[in-house]
Order: sequence, then C-alpha cells, then structure tokens
Amino acid sequence: MASAQHPAERPLADGQTRIDFQTAPARYRHWKLAIDGDVATLFMDVDEKGALFEGYELKLNSYDLGVDIELADAVERLRFEHPQVRVVVLRSGKPRVFCAGANIRMLAGASHAHKVNFCKFTNETRNGIEDLSEHSGLQTICAINGTAAGGGYELALAADYIMLVDDGSSAVALPELPLLAVLPGTGGLTRVADKRKVRRDHADFFCTTEEGVKGKRALEWRLVDEVVPGSKFEETVAARAREFAAKSRRGAAGPGVALTPLARSFTDNGVDYGSLSVEFDRVGRIATVMLRGPSSPPPASADAMMALGAEFWPLKLARELDDAILHIRLNEFDVAAIVFKSSGDPAEMVAYEEFLDANKDHWLAREIRHLWKRVLKRVDLTSRSLVTLIEPGSCFAGTLAELPFASDRSYMFLGRREGDNKPPAAIALTAANFGAYPMSNGLTRLGSRFLANPADLEAAKSERGKMLDAERAEKLGLVTFAPDDIDWDDEVRVFLEERASFSPDSLTGLEANLRFAGPETMESKIFARLTAWQNWIFQRPNAVGEEGALKRYGTGQQPVFDTRRV
Amino acid sequence: MASAQHPAERPLADGQTRIDFQTAPARYRHWKLAIDGDVATLFMDVDEKGALFEGYELKLNSYDLGVDIELADAVERLRFEHPQVRVVVLRSGKPRVFCAGANIRMLAGASHAHKVNFCKFTNETRNGIEDLSEHSGLQTICAINGTAAGGGYELALAADYIMLVDDGSSAVALPELPLLAVLPGTGGLTRVADKRKVRRDHADFFCTTEEGVKGKRALEWRLVDEVVPGSKFEETVAARAREFAAKSRRGAAGPGVALTPLARSFTDNGVDYGSLSVEFDRVGRIATVMLRGPSSPPPASADAMMALGAEFWPLKLARELDDAILHIRLNEFDVAAIVFKSSGDPAEMVAYEEFLDANKDHWLAREIRHLWKRVLKRVDLTSRSLVTLIEPGSCFAGTLAELPFASDRSYMFLGRREGDNKPPAAIALTAANFGAYPMSNGLTRLGSRFLANPADLEAAKSERGKMLDAERAEKLGLVTFAPDDIDWDDEVRVFLEERASFSPDSLTGLEANLRFAGPETMESKIFARLTAWQNWIFQRPNAVGEEGALKRYGTGQQPVFDTRRV
Repeated sequence: MASAQHPAERPLADGQTRIDFQTAPARYRHWKLAIDGDVATLFMDVDEKGALFEGYELKLNSYDLGVDIELADAVERLRFEHPQVRVVVLRSGKPRVFCAGANIRMLAGASHAHKVNFCKFTNETRNGIEDLSEHSGLQTICAINGTAAGGGYELALAADYIMLVDDGSSAVALPELPLLAVLPGTGGLTRVADKRKVRRDHADFFCTTEEGVKGKRALEWRLVDEVVPGSKFEETVAARAREFAAKSRRGAAGPGVALTPLARSFTDNGVDYGSLSVEFDRVGRIATVMLRGPSSPPPASADAMMALGAEFWPLKLARELDDAILHIRLNEFDVAAIVFKSSGDPAEMVAYEEFLDANKDHWLAREIRHLWKRVLKRVDLTSRSLVTLIEPGSCFAGTLAELPFASDRSYMFLGRREGDNKPPAAIALTAANFGAYPMSNGLTRLGSRFLANPADLEAAKSERGKMLDAERAEKLGLVTFAPDDIDWDDEVRVFLEERASFSPDSLTGLEANLRFAGPETMESKIFARLTAWQNWIFQRPNAVGEEGALKRYGTGQQPVFDTRRV
Repeated sequence: MASAQHPAERPLADGQTRIDFQTAPARYRHWKLAIDGDVATLFMDVDEKGALFEGYELKLNSYDLGVDIELADAVERLRFEHPQVRVVVLRSGKPRVFCAGANIRMLAGASHAHKVNFCKFTNETRNGIEDLSEHSGLQTICAINGTAAGGGYELALAADYIMLVDDGSSAVALPELPLLAVLPGTGGLTRVADKRKVRRDHADFFCTTEEGVKGKRALEWRLVDEVVPGSKFEETVAARAREFAAKSRRGAAGPGVALTPLARSFTDNGVDYGSLSVEFDRVGRIATVMLRGPSSPPPASADAMMALGAEFWPLKLARELDDAILHIRLNEFDVAAIVFKSSGDPAEMVAYEEFLDANKDHWLAREIRHLWKRVLKRVDLTSRSLVTLIEPGSCFAGTLAELPFASDRSYMFLGRREGDNKPPAAIALTAANFGAYPMSNGLTRLGSRFLANPADLEAAKSERGKMLDAERAEKLGLVTFAPDDIDWDDEVRVFLEERASFSPDSLTGLEANLRFAGPETMESKIFARLTAWQNWIFQRPNAVGEEGALKRYGTGQQPVFDTRRV
C-alpha cells in the first residue's frame, strides 16, 4: 500500500506491500540476543542483503528501519520476557566494525516522509533504551570494537556507559555534517550537549570532523566513558557487565511473559486486532481507531495476571495500539486525522486501573504501565491531527482517558442519541491520570493541560473515580466541546473536513508547538528542536538537491552548495 | 549590495543598496512615540507607501522589516532617552484597525534567507519589549481597537496586558495556518502556549480559525486580559495606564541620554565605526569584526558618565556591534564565519567593568548592561559560524570575554609572534562573566560551557581579575585551542576554509543545537523549536510552491496541497 500510494518511495524488498513492525528473535536477520544469567548481549550483525527496501545493501553494519524494528523488538522482549536480566551489552557481531550508522543510499533514495518517520522511530527506540535503564533499572553498556559513526555513535549515546577500544584507529564520530550536509538525526547533537555535556567548542570540533575522535581525547572530551586496549577489551567488557549487574536494582526471579504474535488481519480499508480496529476513510483521509474495553473483569491475583500473559487486556491493547500507530505513521502517509473512539464499560476500566495499582510492586504491572507510557508518548509524537470522540457507550476512563488529553481536540456527546438506548457518555479519571504517564516534556497530560491554573488540576483530581458526564467534563475543562445530538454530526464533520483541507506541513508544525507547553527535557528537545532542524535540512537543496551532498555521496563528485547562510 | 548579491531578492525601495538599521523618531514613517509624563504611547500608523522593498504596499497596518526597525528603535529610546517613563501603551494610529501582521506580499516575494532573518529580528524586538518590562520595570499595555491578526496579535502577546475592544467584530487571530499554510513566525504559538498558558485544545481551535476569537471567549480562553465596550475604551485604557504607572518600579528623575546617530562609513569591503570595524573577505566568505578597547580610563563619576552620553565607550561599542551584526545578518548572506578580534588593554577593560559595577544602581549603567545582554544574545542567535581569535595586543576581558564564550570555537595565541613586540595575549574574567549576561536559555555562557562540571565554573570564578595567558586559559577550559606562532596561521586558515566549505544549512542546524545546552526558556523555545519548524514550512511547496498558499494568496485560486503528512 505504501508503494502504491507513494510513487516516490522505492519498492519494499521481497514483494512486501507494507512495513511490518512485528517480528520475533527467531526471525531476526540483523541482531542476536544472547542471555547468560543476568547479563544479556545484543549483537548487531546486519545482513547486507536484508534491506527493507530494494536498491541498496546494508554494508558495514549500517541500518535502515528494518534493522531498528528488530532492535526495538529485542528491547521490548528484555522487558517482558527476561525480567531477570540486569545488564545488556550492546555490541557488534562483526570484527573491527561497530556500526556505520543509517544507510546513506537508503536515505538518499527515501521520500522525505519516510526519512522523517524513520528518524522518529529510531529516536523512540533509543529513548526506550534509556527508559529501560532509568525506570526499570536495566543497565546498558555499549562496547565499541571499531568505529562507531553517525547513527552508530548515536546508538552508543543511548547507553549508560560507553567503552571504546584503544587500537589507534577505532573512533567515535558524527560525520553527518562534513560528509552528507545533514545533522545526526537520532538525538546525537542533543545527547552530546545535554546528556554527556560535552563542552560546546569540543562538540563543534567533534561534529565537524569526519574521522571523529579516538583514544584519550575521546575520553577527556567526555565522548566515551572508558578506552580499553584491544588486548584487554573482552575481559574488561565482561568485568564491567558484572559490576553493573551488581549495581542494578532490576532482577525479578522470572519467568517472563512471552510476547506472542499479535493476531491481526489487514483489509483494504482497515486492520483488525483483538481489542482494537482501525478503519480508513480514504476520501476523508481519516483513520478511526476503535479501542474495545476489557470483556471480563480483572484477574483475581498477580499470578492470574501472569497466567494470562500477553492476553492480559492492558498489555494486549497497548501492543495493538502501538502497532496500529506505527502502521499509520509509516504506511499511511495520506491520513490527515486519527480519530480515537472506544466501546465498553468505563466502570470495568476503572476496575483494571485499581488492579494495576494494587499490584504496582509486581514487575509485570510496572512494565505494563511503562509500556502504556511509551505508547502514549508515541501518540503525542505522531504528526497527524488527533481527535477523540467520546460517544455514548464509550469507556474513556483511566489509561484510556489519556487519549482525549493527548488529542488536539476532543468532542464529548452531551445526552443520548435519538433512538439509541446506550447510556450517555461518561469519562472517569483515576490515579493513573495524575502521574503514571508523563509526556516527553516531563509533565502529565493533565498537568500540561492545566498549566495556567494548578487549581484546575486539583479540581480534576478531586473527581477521581466518579463517572463524569459531558456537562461536568466540559466544566472541568477535560473536553473541548460537548455538542448534543442536534449539533454533533455537523460539528464533527466540519472539524474533520477542515482538518483535511489544511496544509499538512503547517499542521505538523502547529501541533508540535501546541502539544508540548511547559518545561523541556532532553527527549522533548530531540523531537522539538533537533527534529525540526533536521526536517528543514532534509528539504534543502544543499542536502537533497541533484548537486547536494546526499545525492552526490559516493559518486566521486563534490556537492555544490548554495553558500547563503539563512 | 544585498540586491547585487542576491538576485532572488526584490530591489529595495528608494534606490537603497542595503537595509539600514539606524533611524530616529524624526524619520519614522510608521510609528509615533508620544510621551505624556510617565506614560508613553506608541502609535502604529503604517505608511502604505513606505515599504522597505519595491513591489508591495503596507495596507491595514501590515508590516515589513522597515516597520519593525522603527519599533525596535523606539523601544531603545524609551530605555535610554526617557528613563522617567513607567508605562508604554502600544496601539494603532488608524481607526478600527489594529494590525494585520507581516505583509503577505512581502513574504510571498522575499527570499528564504530574508524571511528567516526578518522573523528573527521581529522576535528579538518582541523579546526586547518583554525584557524592558521584566528587567527595567517599564510596564506594557496593548490596546486593541480593531482586529489584531497574525503578527498583529503577536505584537500584543509581547505586552504585559492586552485590552480588546468589545464591539462585536474586533478580534484577535492567528490566521497563518488556515490562510497561508505557515505558522505564526514571531513567537505566537510559544507565547499562546507558554506565556498566556492557553489550554492546548483552545489554542488548537484558535490557531486554525481564520477569523479568530473575540469578546467574552477571548477573555475566557486567556487570549486577552480585558474586553472593554467601545464607548468606554479610551477612558479604560487611560485608567489602566495610570494604574500600571503607579505599580511600576521604574522612573528615574531623568534626563535621559540621547542616542545620537552612529558615525559609520561603508566601503565595498567593510564598515568603519568609531570603536569597531568590519572587514569582508569575500573570497574566503569571512567577516572580521575588530573591536577596539577604550582609549581613555573610565569616567570619574556617574555624572561624568551621563555627560559622555552616547559617547560613553561601553554604550557606544554595544550600539556599534549591534548594528554590525544586523548588517551582516541581513545584507551579507554570503558570510560563512564571523571572526571576532580585539585590540586594546585588558586592564583598561577591567577598569570599565569595575566602574559599571560600582555604579550598578545608576539607571544608565543598568541599561548599558541590559543592552550588552541583548547584543550578546543577538550574537548567539546569529546563524553564522562564530570564532574568536585572541591574539597578542587583544583585550578580551569582562564583557568582551563573552565573545569567545559565545563563539563556536576560540583560538588563543600562545606566546609572542616572531618579530612582534606586542605582549602575549591575555584574557581576564570579571563579575560580569558570572551573571550579567544570561543567554536565551537562562544560563550564563560560562555556566552553559561548564554544564558537565560546576567545579570548572568555580575554578574560573576564582581567577576573576587576573590576566590569564594562553596556557592558563586553555587549562581552565576558557578557550578551545592555544596554538603557538608555528601552528597559528595554518590552524586558523584550515578552520576557516573548512567552515566555508560546509553546507551552510547544516551549520545553521548544528550551531543552533550545540550553542544552547541545558535548560529551555520561552525565548529559547521560540528560536529553537518554533523557528526551526517555521523554517521547514517556509521551504515546503505547500507554502511556497507555485500552487502553494503563500503564492496563491489573494489570487482567487485555492492552493493545492501535497496531502502526505510527514
């Protein structure tokens, strides 16, 4: 579908018609996950012939989205399937080569929309690695046995601890600017400046030096945490892994929960999952995501939750929503607006929230909360207009109530629909809405919504657990508009038509600015500042024009630049 | 020179060959500054025929850079010439029209480089208005007597207090997205979200509604602070002005200091000011800014400083540097790197710093510090590579030492030059380097530089007042490299050649990311996030293509959009 809709995009390899975000270790072509007690090692060993699209090879451990989908999958499995793991070592499976970064021929031939969404996904994967360390205590070490260039060094930057072999040639580098006239697109600049706090003039030198920095200077400039002679590399990596494992606060007794394959069926106009379905209105350019509430009460105990495994409703729905969002992002570029709807019993939703809270010390309940946190961030960062329609029969309570708060607007149906016996729409807040799900700016969605007046946040808090009808929800500021049966259809239709009529680019910029009021974090800086600049540069002839650096790379011809500074 | 270098730019009006940032009230064509005791009123009454470039008229109080240069000048004069003023009321000089924002035909015909630098300047002017309120206590009221659209409302957003006439038609609006497929480019989105803390769904509605919001809803949604019936408008504005004047902590007895015209001479290859000169190497694409230290000791007293007026060296140099930077930004797009050099006695510089500190309670000394703060921010935000060359005979001490810290790199000459009897280069830190000049991220330049290790900042602080040679300065982390006579010429040459060889766009993005590590403020969000998104959108065919909204505005033809979301 992607290739049919977007002739600018090259065809997917192996006759695929869409990018699939589901995989499993047995199917990995580029990574190997090896587990030895409480230490996991993730070997990057990219299959040159395993590119996602036709037309390029993945030489020197360079990567494309297909490679990163496997990495993201492996990280999720460390969370759910291997709760006993305390340390993960990221390293190369190839001798004397760490990773050459994103594949340049892939970038040179990809559509702008693919490039931007590829970078967004790889950023989310690296943020996920940091989240794993910060919130689940799994320590990450990157052991660099060759040169880590561009995205290769950016992968290292996501780790807690970077080790570089000191062999006179291995280096870390961000050569994007001198080589390709673009920026490191996966958080490199932000992590160099804000995470590793490299002095700005050193960072300037580093990011403009094609061959990068090695040995003692790499250490002195804070680019790596340790340089190790080649002869001692293996033993030192093993020693650090043991030290970090001893410090880690992770380590459940196990066993984990198998992330079984999602049951999905794709049709021309939608995708059906177990607890969620997506329907495309291709004329209106709308994707409607219908989330179905739980069909049974929460399990009686943590053991019962473990027994349900990936079928436990909150885990199942989170994985399905994540897959659906990624599918829309990377396979359905023409969708202007995502409409969230739900069906189910809000009281049942509240019961699930209470179950998760009651079991908040169980590793699985914690990981499910963290998964929802990441999925909801993925929603926030999706550059489509987001709207939630809260209709009679819906169940936007607790975790699902985050969707209207994540949306650019929400409409809540006031009263009943004529000739419909469903009860009037109600939403319910729970403790989860007040802390479990920070946005990338560090605030909760309600905290961000009520920035002007903290008393509004307190007022909402005092209504926890209550079923709030449209009038009350509007008064509390929880929904944008609450039209009744007479106005509903017209208001919603006009809004969606209007949204589809606007320039998609300006909506992307508008939403990226209005969704994230308040403070900034490294994560929000990556998506707001770095991504925006990179998007700009990815449009400039100096990078992507016929004489630009990306197009001329490897041809032997020098790029020609428009020398005007902007 | 601008038009000769940049054929894409339309010719300047009246046969001008460069944009001039110097003006004075007697020459204003678009604003009138009226002062009545402690209340000033700035009337915007744009002369339709007074456009900066040929080819468009400034209807309905729309503006171009020429209009904003006058506004910026008026704000500076309020600071220096009218220290007794406590309140300024911004209003329209035209009946029933406030301001229609940036002129659309100007935008549609301007080069990308001009558009971006125009937006940067207008942002700096509005930040200056806020700085005037926050740091000098001059309260600002915006009295809107008609519709304030786009940049018109963004001007209002810079004020402390916004009053809107309630006449059934006057509204505030940010119609850029629905009308032109671009974003409000002068801080509007950031100020709506972060300054006025408008709820995000209200902001979404507001920014996608061409006609804007008026009356009670404008007040309820926090878009304005007061709505006033037309019949009571004048008296209420006058009353608010008196109230704010009573609350203001400003109000020196006066008199002020006249900002006399800068003495400048332009040649083909440079500009000469009294205390500063600029030299263009057009082949190397370098602008060398030579700053000359004071030629006499500081005055004996505050009265003596007042008697010197605009000739007082720190004031004179700040104004000249500001003018030079703006000239390079908007008339010399081909400059890749700005090289700062200085000549003078660093001990004399330290004496001036001590004088300003000793008189820190004098309004003029305070305003001079604030002026330097803004000029240095202007340097930080200039999208050219910045380098400081600290050579024998230079005087980078105190305020001037901020220039190497503002630079992407600095080189300090180690020892003496062969055959030259100038003393070895020395720099000196003073109290001014540790608080007087925050960057737009709220940190001092040294605080930002030493983010990794606060002890480095303390070490630098303990060296205040000492003359630091190259070895010591390098050890303290104050300069990037310290080559000696053997290496100096080659190192500097290679760096400058390399800089000129890189893609200008990628340098802009790189520097915008590396210069501003650490926290974010509303100001840094405007320049980092909003500007970056706007730059991107200003390049996209949906805005600027032949069928794009900016090009088709006013033609009666609808724009045609590429519907892919990115």
